[in-house]
Amino acid sequence: MTITPITPADSGIRVAVSTVIFSQRDGRIVLPLVRRTRDPHEGQWALPGGWVDAAENLDATASRTLAETTGLAPSYLEQLYAFGDIGRSPERVVSIVYWALVREDVARAAEQHNVEWFDVSELPELAFDHTQIVDYALWRLRNKVGYSRIAHGFLPSHFTLADLREVYESILGKRLDPANFRRQVENSGTLIPTDDFRTGSHRPARLYRYNHDVELAERGPLPH
Amino acid sequence: MTITPITPADSGIRVAVSTVIFSQRDGRIVLPLVRRTRDPHEGQWALPGGWVDAAENLDATASRTLAETTGLAPSYLEQLYAFGDIGRSPERVVSIVYWALVREDVARAAEQHNVEWFDVSELPELAFDHTQIVDYALWRLRNKVGYSRIAHGFLPSHFTLADLREVYESILGKRLDPANFRRQVENSGTLIPTDDFRTGSHRPARLYRYNHDVELAERGPLPH
Repeated sequence: MTITPITPADSGIRVAVSTVIFSQRDGRIVLPLVRRTRDPHEGQWALPGGWVDAAENLDATASRTLAETTGLAPSYLEQLYAFGDIGRSPERVVSIVYWALVREDVARAAEQHNVEWFDVSELPELAFDHTQIVDYALWRLRNKVGYSRIAHGFLPSHFTLADLREVYESILGKRLDPANFRRQVENSGTLIPTDDFRTGSHRPARLYRYNHDVELAERGPLPH
Repeated sequence: MTITPITPADSGIRVAVSTVIFSQRDGRIVLPLVRRTRDPHEGQWALPGGWVDAAENLDATASRTLAETTGLAPSYLEQLYAFGDIGRSPERVVSIVYWALVREDVARAAEQHNVEWFDVSELPELAFDHTQIVDYALWRLRNKVGYSRIAHGFLPSHFTLADLREVYESILGKRLDPANFRRQVENSGTLIPTDDFRTGSHRPARLYRYNHDVELAERGPLPH
């Protein structure tokens, strides 16, 4: 037996894309939500997203709907999981969920009246199964920060080791020893020290930049 | 702006499930393919799969189509990735791809005339984008074997350390030092030694079983 078209062209299944966007603000992980203006779940907060156009790749739908609903252009965008349980919406909707990282300066520049940023530890009740989706995305973020350069997706091109440590601390929800952190990062080969320093109220701190020879996250043989 | 239904109920997008099934045979990783009996790609080898029924969860579609096309019940089944590029099929088809592990004895018992098992290093030309899908699944398998108990999905309930090492060797495509391997596995806490031994032409080898307190693979807050 091979793949047989047992359903008509109109299968009654609709395909959407939603995106969980993480940014960092004041040492906390935050995400933007949009308020729904129609049923189902009118008035509730939901992840930004939209329907997949028949002539558009899934990654392109994610980028387009992100821009349309939030004005955001992420520094990292990856497919997370397809959520398709029959009870998750009145209609049958399969949502291909992406997750994205946005730098703090980019997030602040794109503030829109219809979008509100929430601390991930203080989320309101969300529409559909979006609470479960956010929980899964947070789990992926916390796992991935351990074995990839994913934390850099929150940072501008030049940053101090304290900036980077603060990102790790907000993702992992715990304090890290500064000396140990410095040693681990310097041994990882992922950062290149620059000759510039940030000066201010504290003693000058060296600025670092990414080593672009190292990928932000290993995606394997998927197209980039 | 919130999620707005910009496409009619018939969006022209169909949703399918395909599954990459891995098993082990004679120290090699093998997978089953089915020969297509109709266009597109009539006569070519393809991954087993089928259309998602509107009243069926995605995981259920994966299990059902696996049983229908190959007769197989996997010991491990996980969603891999949603492939949905516009050019991958004459119609627009989004395939939610799963990957599964099947024990060698289960695979041999389920042999069907329409299914053929191939060494992953000697695959024929595949229909659609299934070659790319298999490449990605192999990459995920090789990554995951390093930080989870995924190798146990290939083995029966009781096995020797040599059995387990052979699975790792076939996944990673390289020989492992037996003494180092034994030490690492014994330190991991994932195996429980039994009082039974396998006897035969070699000296008796102790049989081990899984520690069921440790999950086969960490899936996070996704429903099980």
